Amino acid sequence: MSEKQLLGDDEIKLPTGYRAAGLRAGIKKRDVKDMALIVSDEPARIAGVFTTNQVTAAPVKWCREGIKGGAARAIVINSGNANACTGEQGMRDTAQMAQWTADTLDVPVDTVFVCSTGSIGDLLPMPVIEKGIQQLVPALSQAGGRDAAEAIMTTDLYPKHWSVTIEVEGKPVTVSGIVKGAGMIEPNMATMLAFCLTDAKIAPDALQQALTDAVNQSFNRITVDGDQSTNDTVLLLANGQAQHSTELTPAHPDWSAFVEALHEVTLQLALKIVDDGEGSHKRITVLVEGANSDTDADKAARAIANSFLVKTSWAGAHAIWGRVMETMGYSGARILEDQVDIWYDDVQAVQSGIYTGVSRKDLETIIAQPVFILRVNLNIGDGTAVIYTCEITEEYVRINVE
Amino acid sequence: MSEKQLLGDDEIKLPTGYRAAGLRAGIKKRDVKDMALIVSDEPARIAGVFTTNQVTAAPVKWCREGIKGGAARAIVINSGNANACTGEQGMRDTAQMAQWTADTLDVPVDTVFVCSTGSIGDLLPMPVIEKGIQQLVPALSQAGGRDAAEAIMTTDLYPKHWSVTIEVEGKPVTVSGIVKGAGMIEPNMATMLAFCLTDAKIAPDALQQALTDAVNQSFNRITVDGDQSTNDTVLLLANGQAQHSTELTPAHPDWSAFVEALHEVTLQLALKIVDDGEGSHKRITVLVEGANSDTDADKAARAIANSFLVKTSWAGAHAIWGRVMETMGYSGARILEDQVDIWYDDVQAVQSGIYTGVSRKDLETIIAQPVFILRVNLNIGDGTAVIYTCEITEEYVRINVE
Repeated sequence: MSEKQLLGDDEIKLPTGYRAAGLRAGIKKRDVKDMALIVSDEPARIAGVFTTNQVTAAPVKWCREGIKGGAARAIVINSGNANACTGEQGMRDTAQMAQWTADTLDVPVDTVFVCSTGSIGDLLPMPVIEKGIQQLVPALSQAGGRDAAEAIMTTDLYPKHWSVTIEVEGKPVTVSGIVKGAGMIEPNMATMLAFCLTDAKIAPDALQQALTDAVNQSFNRITVDGDQSTNDTVLLLANGQAQHSTELTPAHPDWSAFVEALHEVTLQLALKIVDDGEGSHKRITVLVEGANSDTDADKAARAIANSFLVKTSWAGAHAIWGRVMETMGYSGARILEDQVDIWYDDVQAVQSGIYTGVSRKDLETIIAQPVFILRVNLNIGDGTAVIYTCEITEEYVRINVE
Repeated sequence: MSEKQLLGDDEIKLPTGYRAAGLRAGIKKRDVKDMALIVSDEPARIAGVFTTNQVTAAPVKWCREGIKGGAARAIVINSGNANACTGEQGMRDTAQMAQWTADTLDVPVDTVFVCSTGSIGDLLPMPVIEKGIQQLVPALSQAGGRDAAEAIMTTDLYPKHWSVTIEVEGKPVTVSGIVKGAGMIEPNMATMLAFCLTDAKIAPDALQQALTDAVNQSFNRITVDGDQSTNDTVLLLANGQAQHSTELTPAHPDWSAFVEALHEVTLQLALKIVDDGEGSHKRITVLVEGANSDTDADKAARAIANSFLVKTSWAGAHAIWGRVMETMGYSGARILEDQVDIWYDDVQAVQSGIYTGVSRKDLETIIAQPVFILRVNLNIGDGTAVIYTCEITEEYVRINVE
């Protein structure tokens, strides 16, 4: 656990032209930070990716509408209450949160984005929110990223962030992100929130496409418990304050450098979520190759990564490859039982659907590691998929039950 | 737990013309019964329903082929080893098990059905199996049903059976069944096996249709952990030894009495599986109404019943209806958030997608009960579905991890 906490101990580097703050407003019972504000000093372009759940929280509805305007000055976030399943009053409360923030910052209300995370079904404590916003604005600073990362935490053990600086036209461009995890401790505390900021100048369509692609290769590649929240939101702001002169589009010679930086930030944030899965001490990479299609590979990999029985066997460091076979068998992916090969790291446990006879102790040694790769080749096509996940421990259940 | 154990303490009534036996052959390390034999003194008609998993154990392949012949004299079963993912050798071993049984009983080998349950991936210990069969045959008796029910257990806490006697043309007809559970303790111990026996005379097509319908309304309505095994098998034998003169078909005036009896047996066996879910102390009936279609209702109900986070909240007796909303939102069923109503027994927690304000303590009192109903009305159509399930406790995970 000490190693995990160390990971988050450094300061967070915000790109040029951004300030942030995080503090305790008093939404949560525990004495921890529960509100954050991120501000771009100049209007930024904004892109967003949201939960696919049919039940969406009021702030998700607000943000989905807001990104159509294309301009962002601020993101105001609270933890401790998801403002989900709160009906019309929930929508009014989100709008009010945006309005208070807009008024205090003196920016247009349609450039203020709102995110909430926490319990579902309770109305926001609006007097507490109002006071929080009033305190957040004077607290804004370029060094405030870490406070913001702490304030959006729910069941996370530590704040999570990543930052990359690249060169565009020889000038420094930074991409930074903070995230809170999708793993759940209290059963009504869900939600992944990620906020990525860059000072690059980027064309609006390119911005959204870059974010969608990055999310597909990162946040959509992880699973802790398979549930999808009402509040999941990823926002990307680009305020153009870096010194390069030409707007980034896919035609720009440095476009790929930007895309790689964004992918690195989102992937690192996603992996931090897995590493911070509650009660979890392992990261397992599930790689499925040779499937009938990428879609089939994805189905098989997700079934493995979400199988309660596979995940508990990892916690016990048991090499139960039969459970992996069985799980793929009902995953919906096409499999031919006698074609399947399975490896744990470089040790092959299954060839053509049956046990290779390799030492079980060797397999258990691999599974006992904090990080290992479960690789499956279905040997019937070219489809591939990777999913990052963690094991399920007793601790996880205890926390969820209590 | 004492109440649970009492449930299985009575003797099992086998229909006329059946004998059974169960004993310890020595497949399992623990000193418990691990082989069973069920015999019909006259050739019986047979119907079967098997796992939909693409990975199927050798005995499932054998039985699927065998029911085409339509005649059954014996079912030989072992626990402790699933004979799954065992390739060609596994198929030869299943055939050998059938042959030994056929030789010892002096019946045709294609009237012998084989079922296995236990660890996946290991070859059967054939000398032990052979000795077991030799011991089982002389042990057969009409009172042997309970021994057989014990011998098919893996992680079950108690043997499970149900028996109903009805009248057909004024003559007694009995339907009896034994089952082992689908809940898993050791992660590689899966499988539901159910054996239903009747002395009724039934037309072959009617027999298969009656079983398929009964399974759809019983074993397919339960879920413990959502996994589907490589070995799941339900067999129904009808040996025609009852005294009624006309073969049962849907046109027979007593057909519905037979169907009801079979439904009762399969439903009671299914509910016993839920009640014996490992680490579980509750049975929850999830009823979804008002869905766009029965298929949608089924998706929503299964998503709720399989959600790790919903199930752990039941263990803690928390009324986390927000999690139920969220789960339905990603279930694939169409839902309109502001149309959803949710009840716990007769107390309405959600109306039109938002909290009714009912006392949380009242809800928690309901959820703390050993049996309660979670009822959802989606209010957008006429589709309905019911799923029976149990909660997930720390105990469940501890056993799975160890």
